[in-house]
Amino acid sequence: MTFEPEPPRLPPTIEWRDGKVRLIDQRRLPGELVFLEAATVEELCHAIGSLAIRGAPALGVAGAMGVALAVHRGQDPADAAARLVATRPTAVNLKWGVDRALAAGDPLGEALRIASEDSERNRRLGRLGAGLLPPGCRVLTHCNAGSLACAEYGTALGVIRSAHESGKGPTVWVDETRPVMQGSRLTAWELARLGIPATVLVDGAAGSVMARGDVDCVVVGADRIAANGDVANKIGTYSLAVLARHHRIPFYVAAPLSTVDLNCPSGAQIPVEQRAADEVAVFGTHRVVPAGVAVANPAFDVTPARLVTAIVTDAGIATRPYRAALMRLHADGQRLQGRADDTGRSGLA
Amino acid sequence: MTFEPEPPRLPPTIEWRDGKVRLIDQRRLPGELVFLEAATVEELCHAIGSLAIRGAPALGVAGAMGVALAVHRGQDPADAAARLVATRPTAVNLKWGVDRALAAGDPLGEALRIASEDSERNRRLGRLGAGLLPPGCRVLTHCNAGSLACAEYGTALGVIRSAHESGKGPTVWVDETRPVMQGSRLTAWELARLGIPATVLVDGAAGSVMARGDVDCVVVGADRIAANGDVANKIGTYSLAVLARHHRIPFYVAAPLSTVDLNCPSGAQIPVEQRAADEVAVFGTHRVVPAGVAVANPAFDVTPARLVTAIVTDAGIATRPYRAALMRLHADGQRLQGRADDTGRSGLA
Repeated sequence: MTFEPEPPRLPPTIEWRDGKVRLIDQRRLPGELVFLEAATVEELCHAIGSLAIRGAPALGVAGAMGVALAVHRGQDPADAAARLVATRPTAVNLKWGVDRALAAGDPLGEALRIASEDSERNRRLGRLGAGLLPPGCRVLTHCNAGSLACAEYGTALGVIRSAHESGKGPTVWVDETRPVMQGSRLTAWELARLGIPATVLVDGAAGSVMARGDVDCVVVGADRIAANGDVANKIGTYSLAVLARHHRIPFYVAAPLSTVDLNCPSGAQIPVEQRAADEVAVFGTHRVVPAGVAVANPAFDVTPARLVTAIVTDAGIATRPYRAALMRLHADGQRLQGRADDTGRSGLA
Repeated sequence: MTFEPEPPRLPPTIEWRDGKVRLIDQRRLPGELVFLEAATVEELCHAIGSLAIRGAPALGVAGAMGVALAVHRGQDPADAAARLVATRPTAVNLKWGVDRALAAGDPLGEALRIASEDSERNRRLGRLGAGLLPPGCRVLTHCNAGSLACAEYGTALGVIRSAHESGKGPTVWVDETRPVMQGSRLTAWELARLGIPATVLVDGAAGSVMARGDVDCVVVGADRIAANGDVANKIGTYSLAVLARHHRIPFYVAAPLSTVDLNCPSGAQIPVEQRAADEVAVFGTHRVVPAGVAVANPAFDVTPARLVTAIVTDAGIATRPYRAALMRLHADGQRLQGRADDTGRSGLA
């Protein structure tokens, strides 16, 4: 496998270094770039549980490296696995990474393989998606589907980054993404370090920026994509899709093919997690919602496939009708996975 | 003039009491209800400048009461007027209230008249608007067009309040309204005190709540309405209008007729104020946007008249075509203003 050299200004989200797991402490962003070094499974569990690292692909790597850490220190990997999974019991990818490392003869090798697969997948996805962006494209994005959610490079941000690296000169509108502010805290930070011009705005301002003619396309990530192309992603994504349609702006979803759940027929079957009211009601240390008033805090919304212009995956780009397109990509993706000499080109776009 | 008795739980935003100006300190909401008593012009200027009181109609009353305060203390009213206006140089209504009190023979009488006119106007507007709401209506609103922006009662919230008082049992979705959080801090507080069921949500969640079929109409206020019916209001309003249209939900604007500027032909002539980046970039004491990243912070957006189902004013309800309807209401409004025995019914709805 070959890699482009990593631009020095955006380090890997998580890596194995000198027998330790080194990761960016995302709780300290955007104020300062601080690395956490977990020398024990205990320390890594604490980092995962306290959200120093988050994002499905990144947690997959963290889980696998946790098992490798146990082996490296001569501890019981099965015990470490149980403790790792317990830190975020609903994080499917964490368990997936743990299980893959446990089942492998060489957990560290497997962890490094998961990380490099993620990196390669994102770069391939990024290249494919960048082909959709015209030169000088003014992209609007929401939440953080960037390097920080992955081992490195990013998915939706990978598309923008690839366009930037190929000289297309994209500029980015970044929705701050209430309530947790992944847009202003993480996405804006990544773009700044990559030297990609970015402007942060409140989520409610996206419509007026579109109306002014200042947005050429929307690119977002996905938490889960149903077989019919319905997309679950961070709350606020659906509103953007409706606004993009109203203004005749392409709305692209960029996500690894593993996000497509062919067993989930449509968005109606995707349960929407309701998160704690205090994420909305408490602003720093300051309560902004009066006591006794109800708060609705859905983590995700579902964007129907008819509002999605294209779904960019590492195995190719799907367009309507999505069911057939996604099934085809899935078959192609399984073939790709089998190829050890994969150059990162899928030839399917 | 007759008034319904004021529900005790939502006191007047500003009133004259024992030779002092007594106002709700809105900076302390929603944490605690604290009254500021300004005994001098200086103290009132400080209250206005520090945003203890805000909202165009409320500032009109504050300006007039400031002139009355000077006269009450035997000070030069012209000097007081200049100092009051300088506290918020762009607040048109503040200057309007100051000028009206200055020109009157009895500044205190004039200030009380401005307050009671505002109250009566809002109640009339509220009654007219409530007629548009079906029983059990689930209303979505944005920002604060409530009692706290006025002498009392409110405009958009006056519509909801009137529906509540007439037994229609409305419930309210409250957009938190980033960046300044007038929705969660002020609107939710007012609704809680009035006993109207309310649920706060992040601005980005409005679309998904509409998609679920849980919103029957949107009611918002307006900062300025052009002669063609285009509406300038708090950033995020335009997105709501597009979402309402997409979901075939009525989108109502409620504002006193004085908000309609017949000299402004369309929304294209309304300048959009850009506010300080730190409103978006700083969360309490915590910086959420990395240093060096640009922030766009437009205070308002403009909703085109074609997305507005009706404009509810104190002189009647305007529907398309707006130019003719608003001119007619303006003529009727001037007639209404002349009638001292006005019962609050315009007969135009």
